Amino acid sequence: MSSGLAILDFTHEDLQRVELKMREMCEGAFGPLGEAFLHLIGSGGKRLRPALALMAYRFYAADGPDRIIALAAAVETLHTATLVHDDLIDGALMRRGKTTLNAQWSKGATVLGGDYLFARSAGFAAETGSLQVVQIFADTLRIICDGELRQMFANGQWQIPKESYYRRIFAKTASLFAAAARMGAILADAPAAAEQALYDYGYHLGMAFQIVDDILDFVGDEAVLGKPVGSDLRQGTVTLPFYYFLEAHPEPESVAMLLEADHERRAGHVPAGPDGRSGGIDRLVRMVGQDARAITAARQEASDFAQEAKQRLDGLPAGELRQALADLADFVVARDT
Amino acid sequence: MSSGLAILDFTHEDLQRVELKMREMCEGAFGPLGEAFLHLIGSGGKRLRPALALMAYRFYAADGPDRIIALAAAVETLHTATLVHDDLIDGALMRRGKTTLNAQWSKGATVLGGDYLFARSAGFAAETGSLQVVQIFADTLRIICDGELRQMFANGQWQIPKESYYRRIFAKTASLFAAAARMGAILADAPAAAEQALYDYGYHLGMAFQIVDDILDFVGDEAVLGKPVGSDLRQGTVTLPFYYFLEAHPEPESVAMLLEADHERRAGHVPAGPDGRSGGIDRLVRMVGQDARAITAARQEASDFAQEAKQRLDGLPAGELRQALADLADFVVARDT
Repeated sequence: MSSGLAILDFTHEDLQRVELKMREMCEGAFGPLGEAFLHLIGSGGKRLRPALALMAYRFYAADGPDRIIALAAAVETLHTATLVHDDLIDGALMRRGKTTLNAQWSKGATVLGGDYLFARSAGFAAETGSLQVVQIFADTLRIICDGELRQMFANGQWQIPKESYYRRIFAKTASLFAAAARMGAILADAPAAAEQALYDYGYHLGMAFQIVDDILDFVGDEAVLGKPVGSDLRQGTVTLPFYYFLEAHPEPESVAMLLEADHERRAGHVPAGPDGRSGGIDRLVRMVGQDARAITAARQEASDFAQEAKQRLDGLPAGELRQALADLADFVVARDT
Repeated sequence: MSSGLAILDFTHEDLQRVELKMREMCEGAFGPLGEAFLHLIGSGGKRLRPALALMAYRFYAADGPDRIIALAAAVETLHTATLVHDDLIDGALMRRGKTTLNAQWSKGATVLGGDYLFARSAGFAAETGSLQVVQIFADTLRIICDGELRQMFANGQWQIPKESYYRRIFAKTASLFAAAARMGAILADAPAAAEQALYDYGYHLGMAFQIVDDILDFVGDEAVLGKPVGSDLRQGTVTLPFYYFLEAHPEPESVAMLLEADHERRAGHVPAGPDGRSGGIDRLVRMVGQDARAITAARQEASDFAQEAKQRLDGLPAGELRQALADLADFVVARDT
């Protein structure tokens, strides 16, 4: 993220300590495992979740003791663990422009690799010295898994209420954003109102972040994203842009085309291209990405969540730190990767 | 376990509370998930790990408060989570005479189901109110995953030192037995020497238990075991009976037969029978099971570990409780299921 975003300046040194802690974890692991994790960690990512925890902490505590570094490492390691299992489940071969663990390892080893990361993240959470943090941490993992399972059982159901989409992206993304900010506040002994404000900020930021992710999955540049577009639809998952697309295209032929494409995919009747794609879904992904009304409506919702996130900061001490979190909300909506 | 084993009398009521806690977890989960977990929990198992935690606690604390029930539930739920992923990785369709989760669900859903159980087990661990327990808990999961990954990377290596086998069964089984006993002692504020003695007892008991498991995998009755025999060898995993078998059959034709069988399995050249088995490995499994010297040598090692476990009890308060743990060590070696 070369945007010069102020949040990263604030947390730069602490994030380096988080990075170091995660690298030490890799070096302490069984050879092939450690190497694979270094590859995963080295592939970057925005580190927004640990940065959020670090920033939330800073409002009410000055320096960065070991326990807040442990929290940030716990959050990022948990996030990485869920990505390892997600990529395995989705059969995704690329993320952030690098090969995924499942692209290199057997399914079984990838399952265990993710489990190992869960174990380490739980250990880091315990290092914070706060049972409340551990409890929130465990509960967030429960929410994430529960949401993914519900999504999996709902896959291929095209007519879903918008509330289901919201619940899903809360579980998938906003829950950990919100928990990261809240746990940072807890470690800093923040007042209860501030803890709630930071949780709410994290929640709305996470919702905005995921909606933008879902938009980029239709309109993003594969080279910039580092992964193929349209992956949600290929998995049978309805996201917000497609929700609006369906709303504007209720005519039977659209649905028929969709169902046909879906049927082709499931039955494997249409020989996939050299990149493993079938034509029907590709056409549909392009149609959604070019549907300006659907994309604009989804972007507006992301903006609304970001706006709400900023408002939740009102009760926190004013200053550069608060401004940095407000800027982050704007950045999350404006980003193209 | 209808052996009238005294340990279960001691812990009967507490184990029922553990059972209830786990059932409540199922009822609180997403429908299909809850049902699947009820099926898993209903399939029984010996509940040795939670019983160990409960018994260790009883030496130094009289009643069973919520936190020790939470610990026992954490231990059993963690164990169940690792079984869910193990069965997925091994492609096992039966356990304890019932279908496994992966026999009913997709791979992806099974991965997430296991993850969900990890999350719940971590939450239960936090409910104990002891950060030390959470840390031991997380570290034990790390040891288990690390051991399984090492085993996976070593699969198909037939000439392994016996130390590798010991390390593997420590990671797979004894680590959680030992941790369960130690965490029970910690929650009861047991003296340091007693905490160590209970850890050591759990360790040796777990080692004995796993060696007997590995023997039963060759000589057990499938109907009683509730799963096919020879599964370790089919996975390319060397266990103690096979270690002794190889030691006694160094002649080239045995190894050749083995390698041929292995080659057949890997290449899929030999059409599997209706039960999915190839003949070569079946012959080999029978040969090992009928090798009285190999089986006896392995049994002797299990007995030695059980004996050592009993000796570690010497420093603990004498009485019915200590006798029950001693009897448990004998039972673990004598069992046929």
